Amino acid sequence: VPKLKPEELETRRQEIIEAARICFLRNGFHKTTTDEICREASITPGGLYHYFGGKEEIISAVIAGSSRQVVDRLKGLLDESGDFASAFRELASFFVESMSDPDLDKAARLDIEIWAEALKNQNLAEISREGWSLRRQFMERFIRLGLDEGMYNNPGVVDPKGLSCLLMAILVGLRIGKVVWGEEFDLPGATRSLFLMNSGQLTSQLAIQIQPPVPAAPVR
Amino acid sequence: VPKLKPEELETRRQEIIEAARICFLRNGFHKTTTDEICREASITPGGLYHYFGGKEEIISAVIAGSSRQVVDRLKGLLDESGDFASAFRELASFFVESMSDPDLDKAARLDIEIWAEALKNQNLAEISREGWSLRRQFMERFIRLGLDEGMYNNPGVVDPKGLSCLLMAILVGLRIGKVVWGEEFDLPGATRSLFLMNSGQLTSQLAIQIQPPVPAAPVR
Repeated sequence: VPKLKPEELETRRQEIIEAARICFLRNGFHKTTTDEICREASITPGGLYHYFGGKEEIISAVIAGSSRQVVDRLKGLLDESGDFASAFRELASFFVESMSDPDLDKAARLDIEIWAEALKNQNLAEISREGWSLRRQFMERFIRLGLDEGMYNNPGVVDPKGLSCLLMAILVGLRIGKVVWGEEFDLPGATRSLFLMNSGQLTSQLAIQIQPPVPAAPVR
Repeated sequence: VPKLKPEELETRRQEIIEAARICFLRNGFHKTTTDEICREASITPGGLYHYFGGKEEIISAVIAGSSRQVVDRLKGLLDESGDFASAFRELASFFVESMSDPDLDKAARLDIEIWAEALKNQNLAEISREGWSLRRQFMERFIRLGLDEGMYNNPGVVDPKGLSCLLMAILVGLRIGKVVWGEEFDLPGATRSLFLMNSGQLTSQLAIQIQPPVPAAPVR
């Protein structure tokens, strides 16, 4: 390995992570070999092992990197927006855009592989959990901002943590639906229904009257 | 194999499926051996192979059986309810009940294993898809009933297929969240937020004004 300055080492490391992401999206976690990652990153196996101990360490770096990228991009959108309404619009556009990403199927397949692997691998489970936690925390902050900005008519009922969990679950469920249910799953229709539901257009007095039993809120 | 009447054969088959479900929930798809299923069902391996060709055929029967059971139970709830409001309440209670099932984690783990396996196995993918399709079709029929019964103030915007896909995605996302995100995931909070969102209590004029771009509806 040639002598590199710390910032050059970090750049090279990021290049390898990006190459690995491409390989994992293309062929999945199990089918991807470290040889393929080496070819994609134009590095020798010896060079690769200078940066990463093996495939598991690489997938961990890919997962952590994706979460940081998404959250950094979301924070950027928020910072650039002049007011809450435009931030909300930006965030919604970002969501619609990610849902029509041609790589969505591949990303959802990789998620499923990672979760299945995480059932057997505590370390990977934690990395995966942290990645989703970063995204969820961003959503929770955004909901709190919405509360401050009068986004909700009935602020007393809004539970920012519970709602952020729901939104993350919806995001994941839509990705899973697309890849697991195939043609049967109408993603654009589900996305439109989500916007209608979120803005209270899928309801009536009847729906509010027949409030079903829900789990009690924990005593804080 | 002793000579059995057709109805006795079917009963024995169902007993094996139930025993297999117990094994799969306990140890997952990969770790469960046909020997374990034999022990749980009190049958010899020779006897088992009289009913099923192997583990894959058994898991297919378990998946198909679960979907039929759930949909039969939901249809039963609907038939027993005198009016739409009580049917809605019953359905909501059933949902809350399934979300607090102590076996929910095990069931979600098994789902993840099955989806990962379905990525590599076309046959299992179709069985899994059909199971979710049955549930989704039930939801779609229920939404159409709601439309007839004045459940929605704005019936013109309701897309029963898209909305049923969304509801299925939410159901799956909540199960995944519970098992993949662990302590970080507040399932009761997410469930409460879902009921609030669905009954339009998480919105405001602002939310309706800032309608974000959504994918266009297909021309029918």
